[in-house]
Amino acid sequence: MTNAQIRLAAHPTGLPQPSDWDYSEQPAPEPGPGEFLVQVEHLSLDPAMRGWISGVRTYVEPVKLGEVMRAGGIGRIVDSRHPDFAVGDTVSGPFGVQRYALGREDTVTRIDTSLAPAPTHLAALGIAGMTAYFGLFDVGRLEPGQTVVISGAAGAVGNVAGQIARINGCRVIGIAGGPEKCAHLVDDLGFDAAIDYKAGDIRAQLRTHAPGGVDIYLDNVGGTILDDVLTCLAPGARVVISGAISQYNATQKTPGPANYLQLLFKRASMTGFVIFDYAHRYPEAQAKLAEWVSTGQLISTEHIVEGDIKDFPETLLTLFSGGNTGKLILALP
Amino acid sequence: MTNAQIRLAAHPTGLPQPSDWDYSEQPAPEPGPGEFLVQVEHLSLDPAMRGWISGVRTYVEPVKLGEVMRAGGIGRIVDSRHPDFAVGDTVSGPFGVQRYALGREDTVTRIDTSLAPAPTHLAALGIAGMTAYFGLFDVGRLEPGQTVVISGAAGAVGNVAGQIARINGCRVIGIAGGPEKCAHLVDDLGFDAAIDYKAGDIRAQLRTHAPGGVDIYLDNVGGTILDDVLTCLAPGARVVISGAISQYNATQKTPGPANYLQLLFKRASMTGFVIFDYAHRYPEAQAKLAEWVSTGQLISTEHIVEGDIKDFPETLLTLFSGGNTGKLILALP
Repeated sequence: MTNAQIRLAAHPTGLPQPSDWDYSEQPAPEPGPGEFLVQVEHLSLDPAMRGWISGVRTYVEPVKLGEVMRAGGIGRIVDSRHPDFAVGDTVSGPFGVQRYALGREDTVTRIDTSLAPAPTHLAALGIAGMTAYFGLFDVGRLEPGQTVVISGAAGAVGNVAGQIARINGCRVIGIAGGPEKCAHLVDDLGFDAAIDYKAGDIRAQLRTHAPGGVDIYLDNVGGTILDDVLTCLAPGARVVISGAISQYNATQKTPGPANYLQLLFKRASMTGFVIFDYAHRYPEAQAKLAEWVSTGQLISTEHIVEGDIKDFPETLLTLFSGGNTGKLILALP
Repeated sequence: MTNAQIRLAAHPTGLPQPSDWDYSEQPAPEPGPGEFLVQVEHLSLDPAMRGWISGVRTYVEPVKLGEVMRAGGIGRIVDSRHPDFAVGDTVSGPFGVQRYALGREDTVTRIDTSLAPAPTHLAALGIAGMTAYFGLFDVGRLEPGQTVVISGAAGAVGNVAGQIARINGCRVIGIAGGPEKCAHLVDDLGFDAAIDYKAGDIRAQLRTHAPGGVDIYLDNVGGTILDDVLTCLAPGARVVISGAISQYNATQKTPGPANYLQLLFKRASMTGFVIFDYAHRYPEAQAKLAEWVSTGQLISTEHIVEGDIKDFPETLLTLFSGGNTGKLILALP
């Protein structure tokens, strides 16, 4: 069994380049006592990866040069020295960008593929869906009847967040790039409105669609869109900072939200969070998300690219060109 | 009785100019049934006034051109048609920048000058002190043992805030302009440390004085100091936006806090508040502040300028040149 791997070769400046990665092949490792070998079948590709490879400590340790690139994934056990994990079982875990990874009981989660196919466990039922869940309910203190705006709304977190808000009786406005994504949000996912940020005046559209102001803004993009939404807050609004994809590849210092004093005028808050802090409550979120998926209220949207481990660097760039709708997943043969 | 008044003549661009104000004299008004006439003796001068005269709605209606300038003050009743308010009683209220103002039972608060002299009721026991109180306890969720940083620390809100944090068992670091103010904070008011923002590297000094990070930052200034403190937050930190005096006179759009993504990395929040929302809880704050003043734990620092109504425009500028230490008050003869 040959283990294909992608390792970090250089900390990127701007968009990651091919030269920032090393591809190599070597024999797959042998599981020790209590371990098992996982053949990775689906890899989760996340905007946050750009932060992990920047060489700067943010909320997690940066990926070091020469290390296998960090990534979550789902795979099947192909060799086991653990009595409770059998060959053929499906598990998710932080397997990294490689074809084979060792797992242990404390590093993986069993996946029930009878509930939903594996990719859905990386999307609506995975970290992306749980980020939407805790971002809205815990940080955003979502209540029925409120007006919720979501940026990066066609992305992995955003599309689930909008649906969660809709299911819970909120008015939902998504901000996304391009008419196709906007139509998808409204027509397929039940958003009340969608704003194409590439088509002009975001503030004017926000005032049209949210005349009473924005109660919750789940921000996945940062930049000028954050600044625009700040001018449209309702009193007591909660701005939830989930990410800032517009800034991750910046090669110069990016401007901050110049309209932050609206937080004072509107008695509003802007709060950051990191999903890993909620690990002890993942079961709660997953149970709720699975219920909504099983009843058809929540549609898991996955953008699946079929490829090999060596396709990871190029596939990752899809996130930063706005090429994906829903959760970007690399499906290995 | 001649009523001297300052009215707003123009919405300023940058620092308010003499031409932005009209001075006039006219007969004092006659109290109607249930009203009384107050001779204003002390006027509160506040950085927030700059926002009120900008012509833009922020958290209150802007002062309109031709209106008497809005201001809080304290004065003595000199004529009364209300049975419970006698000539000679001292009251505070939104009297405006004028020598005589009409008051009613529902617009004024009785002042107990046996508890503290009148200016103290505009400083530690007034809106400034209560802003510090609610900003720290309610918005900042202050707890003993935490590290609290305060900007504009020698100002009306800041100096009280630092003392409240000290009294409640916190480590307090003030940021102020110049060695005299910094010495005052440490030597007279018991701050643990003070950082002179005019003397260089704020971040390095913050790391020295707050090696475990900043739990609460009460921001009165905005601008680059806010951006510096954002890089030094402890996990779960609360940034409390009380004001942004560095920006109030800007003639061009001011940059936002470029380091706002630290809110995500540190799971921190940035929350604005407006003291007027706490009106129903003023008695609670005033009782506590008065207790600390009476026991000598809290020193009310007032910067009193003796002058006439016509001195208001020039005196106001003291706030924006950093000329005051403590609460700026115009004392009328």
